[in-house]
Amino acid sequence: MRATVLHSPGDIRLDTLPDPDLEADTDAIVRVVAACVCGSDLWPYRGLNKPQTEPHQIGHEHVGVVERVGSDVSALSVGDFVIAPFMYSDNTCVHCRNGVQTSCVNGGGYTGCQAELVRVPQADGTLVTVPGEVGDDLLPHVLALTDVFPTGHHAAVSAGVTAGSTVVVVGDGAVGLSAVLAAKRLGASTVVAMSRHADRQALATEFGADHIVEKRDKEGAAEVREILDGIGADAVLECVGTKESMKQAFLSLRPGGTVGYVGVPHGVELNVPAMFGRNQGLAGGVAPVRAYLDELLPEVLSGDLRPGAVFDHTFALDEVADAYTAMDERTAIKALLRP
Amino acid sequence: MRATVLHSPGDIRLDTLPDPDLEADTDAIVRVVAACVCGSDLWPYRGLNKPQTEPHQIGHEHVGVVERVGSDVSALSVGDFVIAPFMYSDNTCVHCRNGVQTSCVNGGGYTGCQAELVRVPQADGTLVTVPGEVGDDLLPHVLALTDVFPTGHHAAVSAGVTAGSTVVVVGDGAVGLSAVLAAKRLGASTVVAMSRHADRQALATEFGADHIVEKRDKEGAAEVREILDGIGADAVLECVGTKESMKQAFLSLRPGGTVGYVGVPHGVELNVPAMFGRNQGLAGGVAPVRAYLDELLPEVLSGDLRPGAVFDHTFALDEVADAYTAMDERTAIKALLRP
Repeated sequence: MRATVLHSPGDIRLDTLPDPDLEADTDAIVRVVAACVCGSDLWPYRGLNKPQTEPHQIGHEHVGVVERVGSDVSALSVGDFVIAPFMYSDNTCVHCRNGVQTSCVNGGGYTGCQAELVRVPQADGTLVTVPGEVGDDLLPHVLALTDVFPTGHHAAVSAGVTAGSTVVVVGDGAVGLSAVLAAKRLGASTVVAMSRHADRQALATEFGADHIVEKRDKEGAAEVREILDGIGADAVLECVGTKESMKQAFLSLRPGGTVGYVGVPHGVELNVPAMFGRNQGLAGGVAPVRAYLDELLPEVLSGDLRPGAVFDHTFALDEVADAYTAMDERTAIKALLRP
Repeated sequence: MRATVLHSPGDIRLDTLPDPDLEADTDAIVRVVAACVCGSDLWPYRGLNKPQTEPHQIGHEHVGVVERVGSDVSALSVGDFVIAPFMYSDNTCVHCRNGVQTSCVNGGGYTGCQAELVRVPQADGTLVTVPGEVGDDLLPHVLALTDVFPTGHHAAVSAGVTAGSTVVVVGDGAVGLSAVLAAKRLGASTVVAMSRHADRQALATEFGADHIVEKRDKEGAAEVREILDGIGADAVLECVGTKESMKQAFLSLRPGGTVGYVGVPHGVELNVPAMFGRNQGLAGGVAPVRAYLDELLPEVLSGDLRPGAVFDHTFALDEVADAYTAMDERTAIKALLRP
């Protein structure tokens, strides 16, 4: 099969690799219909994670059609169109029952999904079948359910967003924009998106943002406070993961509020005494996508929820290097890949 | 009046100072009926806060009788028996309306309450009148509402303790023991108290703790997991404020759980990437006591809630130095002072 391999930072190639095989009776093999590039893929692409020692496959978001199933797989049939949350889980262990499928005792991450075929462990617990035909119109929206939208949703849920909440979103990547949509869906009365890019501002507004703030640091926080009763937001959704973005989040939060964070933390530092004095909480983490699909998929199928608008560029799989360049240079909000 | 003054670390004296006077029309002067020593008073007593430059009054918990009121005080009358939350607040500003009275725009801390008289700013917003007679039997329980019990309660509320929660309490001081009582009151199914002292273990059990764990560090966390389904607690209440106690709290918490912290942080460090990967949150801070009194006082008056059991030693005000010694050496769980 053809599969995307990161050979070293900046060196993305579509290589030919052996097809994946069933390794456990609970595995399935999925033929990828669509995959995409995540902001978190850019960390190793940019060489900002721990030093890379050897080439490895990359990508963790895909939807596709079940091609083979192991002998213990009972909930899926060959030919099913499935959504694959970006981590696999048995969906039965105590952590899964607690809604933290990302901590599943039999869970983990994929070898790589920007490929033609993916081996999905714990297939019964992981894959969610989409009933009926999935045409090109529906495709981006179900693909968005593998990671980006549930991750924005997780930020909002973790921060306690509910009817009437005031919300600030830090980060105008695809996750941040999804967080805007998620916050409005949960009933937020006011959502402020912090963004400096016209294309992202436009999508934030389409997703329901009531205000756009371009300033940053203390100036940005001052503008946020001006919008929000002089005190800051009930909930801030931190969708970047840097020291600066987390600082921005707490600067924009009112006393007693919560930062919901989903940006993979890189060098984040917290001022605990300040948080303590202002009763500001921190919640969130790696999004347990599987926990949210039963709630979100019906709304996508009915057309009420259209999170796939974050995909503004589509590339063929053999253009994957261009997709990474577009994401890296921020000319794409989020790149969809078609094998 | 006689008032407790910290002259330098370890040097506590009962000095004679001028009586406090009304300074604003919203002030009241309260004649103290009972005060007490807080674990947080021990930080400056032990010289563990920033260097002390000059002697200052100390103490922030008191109940008493209103002696004088300013011309703008309308909700209180001379002779009222009142509970004074350990920070004052107008109880009308936006932060107070959000239930974060500790961030009141007109709020702050007292000059010192281990004294015969206290000037209470924002008296209408701060002081809560206790109807009827307050005899010696009721006294410790209403005194416990000024700080120690609502602080334990705040840890439990912040950590999301609700019916059926599994809870670990880190810290067996008066706040930790109050947190045990608060967690059971909120319906926790299992409460594990971490304690090595027989007297504190006994009170934890009296307050409803289902298990006592004496071990610490990874061994203590392993015992906690053994008790709690192998995974740790839904909620951990951190009632100390040190680096070690916070580490113990996260070691004892299940993925997806929340640490509710009320121990004033001194050198606390957080492992943010680990919290992120396990979806573990942190919430809490300085307890907004005033926010909880309307709910808690009726239960104290009815006798259903008896948080004053934390006071195991009573001292006359002129024995205040002995009270500090007893708290410092942990021979007292919490010392009550009678002027």
